[in-house]
Amino acid sequence: MQLDHVGIAVPDLTAALAAWGPLIGAPDGPPEVVPSNRVRVAFVDVGGTHVELLEPTEPTSPVARFLESRGPGVHHLAFHVPSVDAALAGVRERGGRLVDERARPGARGRRVGFAHPSAFGGVLVEFVEGP
Amino acid sequence: MQLDHVGIAVPDLTAALAAWGPLIGAPDGPPEVVPSNRVRVAFVDVGGTHVELLEPTEPTSPVARFLESRGPGVHHLAFHVPSVDAALAGVRERGGRLVDERARPGARGRRVGFAHPSAFGGVLVEFVEGP
Repeated sequence: MQLDHVGIAVPDLTAALAAWGPLIGAPDGPPEVVPSNRVRVAFVDVGGTHVELLEPTEPTSPVARFLESRGPGVHHLAFHVPSVDAALAGVRERGGRLVDERARPGARGRRVGFAHPSAFGGVLVEFVEGP
Repeated sequence: MQLDHVGIAVPDLTAALAAWGPLIGAPDGPPEVVPSNRVRVAFVDVGGTHVELLEPTEPTSPVARFLESRGPGVHHLAFHVPSVDAALAGVRERGGRLVDERARPGARGRRVGFAHPSAFGGVLVEFVEGP
């Protein structure tokens, strides 16, 4: 099982890239808007896995609500899986709650799906399909 | 810059290993007590980086205080650095606050040091020296 990325909620993507830059370097490319999550994101390679910085694009974004209730910080952990639908089904079969019942489009053109934080001890887990 | 591990605060290490096992598999070895942090930890390989599950061993542990105030969840991100002392000095020179002024012994026999969450947008960052 491979960690694809660590998602960090930030109020301002430009400021966050400046703050993190001295430690982790420049992002892989220009920021990408992910309409399904109402976020603007940037990925930075950190040795085979990535840091994803997430800035909400609307007050209704789940990341905006996270920032309001918890403040900036780690928002989710994302793991590579061969099939997001199968991974979500596995969580459900073990009695875990889901955010997404099936895979949907995420950042970088990947299929993604989220389990509920209660399924993994308070950690929001995202599944990401290949490559 | 390489992500060494993601530290997750848990109230019960055995229960956490059972909950995470179906997703990330078994730990690298038996749990280790880290007296300097008053935690018992287990590391699980997730594709070159690791998940560290941290259970407090005393109510005065920083992880116990984290669990009280925020509940279980991601506690810190740890990055490989050639020198913890140099990495801490770099944060200080950029005006960032530190938890540790110099390197100290951490888990797995490594030298470690923590910056303050305010230095990296609300994320507690640990520096870990090689290998």
